[in-house]
Amino acid sequence: MNDTTRHHIFLGGTAFLAVSVVAVPALADEASIGDTVIQLAYSVDTFYFLMSGALVMWMAAGFSMLEAGLVRSKNTVEILTKNVALYSVACLMYMLVGYNIMYGDALNSIIPGLSFFLGADNTVDEVLKSGGETYYSNMSDFFFQVVFVATAMSIVSGAVAERMKLWAFLAFAVVMTGFIYPVQGYWKWGGGFLDALGFLDFAGSGVVHLCGASAALAGVLLLGARSGKYSKGRIKAIPGSNLPLATLGTFILWLGWFGFNGGSELKISNVVEANAVSMVFVNTNTAAAGGLVAALLLSQFWFGKADLTMILNGALAGLVAITAEPLTPSPLVATFVGAVAGLLVVVAIISLDKLKIDDPVGAISVHGVCGTWGLLAVAFTNPEGSLVAQLTGIAVIFSWVFGTSFVVWMILKMVIGIRVTEEEELEGVDVAECGLAAYPEFTKD
Amino acid sequence: MNDTTRHHIFLGGTAFLAVSVVAVPALADEASIGDTVIQLAYSVDTFYFLMSGALVMWMAAGFSMLEAGLVRSKNTVEILTKNVALYSVACLMYMLVGYNIMYGDALNSIIPGLSFFLGADNTVDEVLKSGGETYYSNMSDFFFQVVFVATAMSIVSGAVAERMKLWAFLAFAVVMTGFIYPVQGYWKWGGGFLDALGFLDFAGSGVVHLCGASAALAGVLLLGARSGKYSKGRIKAIPGSNLPLATLGTFILWLGWFGFNGGSELKISNVVEANAVSMVFVNTNTAAAGGLVAALLLSQFWFGKADLTMILNGALAGLVAITAEPLTPSPLVATFVGAVAGLLVVVAIISLDKLKIDDPVGAISVHGVCGTWGLLAVAFTNPEGSLVAQLTGIAVIFSWVFGTSFVVWMILKMVIGIRVTEEEELEGVDVAECGLAAYPEFTKD
Amino acid sequence: MNDTTRHHIFLGGTAFLAVSVVAVPALADEASIGDTVIQLAYSVDTFYFLMSGALVMWMAAGFSMLEAGLVRSKNTVEILTKNVALYSVACLMYMLVGYNIMYGDALNSIIPGLSFFLGADNTVDEVLKSGGETYYSNMSDFFFQVVFVATAMSIVSGAVAERMKLWAFLAFAVVMTGFIYPVQGYWKWGGGFLDALGFLDFAGSGVVHLCGASAALAGVLLLGARSGKYSKGRIKAIPGSNLPLATLGTFILWLGWFGFNGGSELKISNVVEANAVSMVFVNTNTAAAGGLVAALLLSQFWFGKADLTMILNGALAGLVAITAEPLTPSPLVATFVGAVAGLLVVVAIISLDKLKIDDPVGAISVHGVCGTWGLLAVAFTNPEGSLVAQLTGIAVIFSWVFGTSFVVWMILKMVIGIRVTEEEELEGVDVAECGLAAYPEFTKD
Repeated sequence: MNDTTRHHIFLGGTAFLAVSVVAVPALADEASIGDTVIQLAYSVDTFYFLMSGALVMWMAAGFSMLEAGLVRSKNTVEILTKNVALYSVACLMYMLVGYNIMYGDALNSIIPGLSFFLGADNTVDEVLKSGGETYYSNMSDFFFQVVFVATAMSIVSGAVAERMKLWAFLAFAVVMTGFIYPVQGYWKWGGGFLDALGFLDFAGSGVVHLCGASAALAGVLLLGARSGKYSKGRIKAIPGSNLPLATLGTFILWLGWFGFNGGSELKISNVVEANAVSMVFVNTNTAAAGGLVAALLLSQFWFGKADLTMILNGALAGLVAITAEPLTPSPLVATFVGAVAGLLVVVAIISLDKLKIDDPVGAISVHGVCGTWGLLAVAFTNPEGSLVAQLTGIAVIFSWVFGTSFVVWMILKMVIGIRVTEEEELEGVDVAECGLAAYPEFTKD
Repeated sequence: MNDTTRHHIFLGGTAFLAVSVVAVPALADEASIGDTVIQLAYSVDTFYFLMSGALVMWMAAGFSMLEAGLVRSKNTVEILTKNVALYSVACLMYMLVGYNIMYGDALNSIIPGLSFFLGADNTVDEVLKSGGETYYSNMSDFFFQVVFVATAMSIVSGAVAERMKLWAFLAFAVVMTGFIYPVQGYWKWGGGFLDALGFLDFAGSGVVHLCGASAALAGVLLLGARSGKYSKGRIKAIPGSNLPLATLGTFILWLGWFGFNGGSELKISNVVEANAVSMVFVNTNTAAAGGLVAALLLSQFWFGKADLTMILNGALAGLVAITAEPLTPSPLVATFVGAVAGLLVVVAIISLDKLKIDDPVGAISVHGVCGTWGLLAVAFTNPEGSLVAQLTGIAVIFSWVFGTSFVVWMILKMVIGIRVTEEEELEGVDVAECGLAAYPEFTKD
Repeated sequence: MNDTTRHHIFLGGTAFLAVSVVAVPALADEASIGDTVIQLAYSVDTFYFLMSGALVMWMAAGFSMLEAGLVRSKNTVEILTKNVALYSVACLMYMLVGYNIMYGDALNSIIPGLSFFLGADNTVDEVLKSGGETYYSNMSDFFFQVVFVATAMSIVSGAVAERMKLWAFLAFAVVMTGFIYPVQGYWKWGGGFLDALGFLDFAGSGVVHLCGASAALAGVLLLGARSGKYSKGRIKAIPGSNLPLATLGTFILWLGWFGFNGGSELKISNVVEANAVSMVFVNTNTAAAGGLVAALLLSQFWFGKADLTMILNGALAGLVAITAEPLTPSPLVATFVGAVAGLLVVVAIISLDKLKIDDPVGAISVHGVCGTWGLLAVAFTNPEGSLVAQLTGIAVIFSWVFGTSFVVWMILKMVIGIRVTEEEELEGVDVAECGLAAYPEFTKD
């Protein structure tokens, strides 16, 4: 049994052998070599998309572990349930509706359309006739995009943790991933008016992170703080129950971000693009390192302790900030962008607490404040950036997402309620919502 | 010191420079360009195999975390030990025996042979003479295949958890990975009679998942239920000790499955293949999402709670089911295949408990029941599928693996015993088998 | 809105469209096809570098989880803080100084220079004129190298755990990653005298692992053992607080090692190189499996128990040992190299304890002893290896790193102190250094 036969069998029905057989004599003449090269480049870019998408999908695990580590043990199962469920809801809603809004045939630059994709992928003929301009699988594009919308939604779960009803949250996830996110996604990445204005957002400091944080803020304002958090004029620290888990989550997010930013270059198959993707990897990494070190130093100087939760948020802050433009800055400038974010996030977390905006994991500070900083920084790190366009983009994304989210949360609040009862909150939402304890043997009942 | 010199040195002895030097003038003429393209395509497909294999290897961590999270803390070290050890045993046995049985020169379509591979890899000449039909490294194929057999074996450890002797389990692993799995693997992927019959199994709903579950079922039947599980006519719920760990394990498996299914297309280096791999990624993801959401809804309606362990099993059920055919269905159909699996797994877990078949992690339901569902679904989602062939394949794999496993477990039971003593079970197998506690500071005494 | 337009917009300013447009007519003639192929090969090798680097970066999470699982819960936040901070410090220092020393214009084969890289990447012209000898992005090389220096530094944190001051540790990290590591890195991979002598070290059993272990040993000797570890002539076992975390860490490291060793082939874009990378993957995996099984068997025979911490260290020992030469041995020989390491590490851990060298996680045994074994094994597994050269390399790396580290630790000890107070050690360094508990709800205050 030779090798080829074996694998043909393993393949179970796909037509690669036929393709190969055609390809062999084809290489004998020049035109066919050119065609083979175009096909090969298409496969390299598609492969790059798929690996990037897998890394971004992995970020869902990162958010889950981060949030599970930063809440109390009595609310851990529920936050895990929200995270695995929101990822799934995002995948289904974006497939059914969101993707088709974001990249459909629009009515105009403000009102998107609704086209149905996910039909046939590019044929060999189409690819060859395009001379390589159609350079990757549409399905790989969908895969890459769908994991982004899940990321945006993951941001929300942390901010509303420990007190929001599971099903209200999931109902919001349906609207957010199917409608709110895709509309503003259309305005920028789908080619709508924000794009036309010159608003720049490489991988989504605005479209993904500010978007998620704006939805979270609307939810938090309507939901109120956790019971006991701001009682008697004092801010009560509520420590996370499992910091190794939070650290693991941060590392997962850091790794996944190479796909998030690295994949957003969208092409790797020539020298200029391969260099660009490499630069994005380096800048993403160094911005995170800069954010972490800045938060570490500030924490030590300010609090006299190396507060691990602040330090982890510093790394995430650097990642969020560089996401708006990880290509044009030098690694030193990227470090600076990340470091500023690392300082900002510490200040923002302290400030939100003073404003009695209760965000158990710091999601609004990390994704909202540092997403905004990243978008503003583009005006200085990318020669094509303009402060006016960036400010416009920030205002539009925030207004749209905050406004629509506020309405949706409000409707949910009126119709089914968004907050668990005081007893449930005291007992922990795990028992109330999921009927399970996260660590039944470790904690006093 | 220029770049090339630096890396030549770093390379420490391999001959890439020589190859490059040859390649340079070679590109000047057409035949050589064609040869270079064939070599480049070979490298892309090999790279794709290696990345896919690495993702599947990562599933070993997923099973470990899932199972460690779903057992009690007193049995956690032992289940971890079983998992790391079975992965290693599988790698060694499949290298020494299994791979050579599965893909060797067979006697006939039922009785496999035993050839020794892992010698020299394809030479440049062989690749070029094949005109690109020999399109990837044999070693990369071995790497990809070996992580599959480890997956099959991982399924067993969960079902027999909390009561089986470590060394009996490892002895079984030797036979399973060296002999039982490879023989049925030969029947399908090695080109044996199941393949000839038209039985379709893209990435192993049968060859891997049903196989593992059948071996597990034989073990569980001979082993009996955990002490106290079904006493006094009641089914006692034994909650897992660490649900964040179980959730992490599920996410790891989900990520790894992109390699499991995506890599099983076996080629990516042209437009048709790149599209196919992309479709497999999308369908794998959406089937998992469908399974998760279906299990979530059923759990809420049936139990009134969002039971996280059921929900995680729903995602895994969707993944197992789509594995038999992740290429031909549309994403909507794949969602449906996954959703049915998500419902089935909840019903199966409840039903097995009623039958007093004690499977602490639900492995038989996830991999056996949903693997079977996935194989049957092929008859409806792939035009080349046939219900008769699928039923035959299911019957053959189950009979072979269950039968041989039963005999091996029985021999082990008679010779060395497969179950720990009642005292050891009560105290926890960690102390008895491994002399360590998983969380010495968290649990009482 | 067609596909191309959409993605152009998403791209946000980079020039791929221009490149594509040029490329299309270019494929019409032979020279241009050749150029396109060279560019495509460049992108494949760059992509391979980036994926390998991402896997090595992931090892930072592995070390964090391994070490966090093996220390007591009261010292867990601090070890996590050290790990995330050292990774960031390593990234910044190597960018600012280390990389420029290691690969700069040297004064001579012993004294490195200091050149500043990270400027412009290779232009298309440079790549084409080199005929493909300049075959990947400089930035991707930096990314790959920077995660290696972080690995070396990660080794130190485990050995000095539970008693070293956070800021003394970080100060050492600055010197280690900016200076000590790069100088010996220059001697081998930068083309210095060790390389000229014929010292072979494929991916860093010496340059990375022995290096890290030598620095750790110097620190441990000056630091002393943990309080109570060797009191009254007895060796007190201090069990790790979270073994699932340690197991997860080991799996992460195992996965990351495919990038560590697999990426160190440095090229994948032709048949010979693709085969080589595949062989490296297989041998890396099988050496780990061999190490694990050997440690498991020795542990069972020696202690009568399957000691999970020994078993995990066995796998890591196999990985460290094969790192010096994962390409030339056959898989069987690689298994043997790993198995010897798996035995050695158990003996080394026991022996170091007898010598009262207190290494809480076994880092010196795993990385130092088995790194040395791996370097010696090269003399027998690679025909180009020489025992004298290997011994010279071992002596030089150990002497340099141990000597300079000893001086730096000594200065730190005199200036700021390297050890926490006895009260802080008793209470746990988490509260003292970080002001947080890792698991505030699980352990008795």
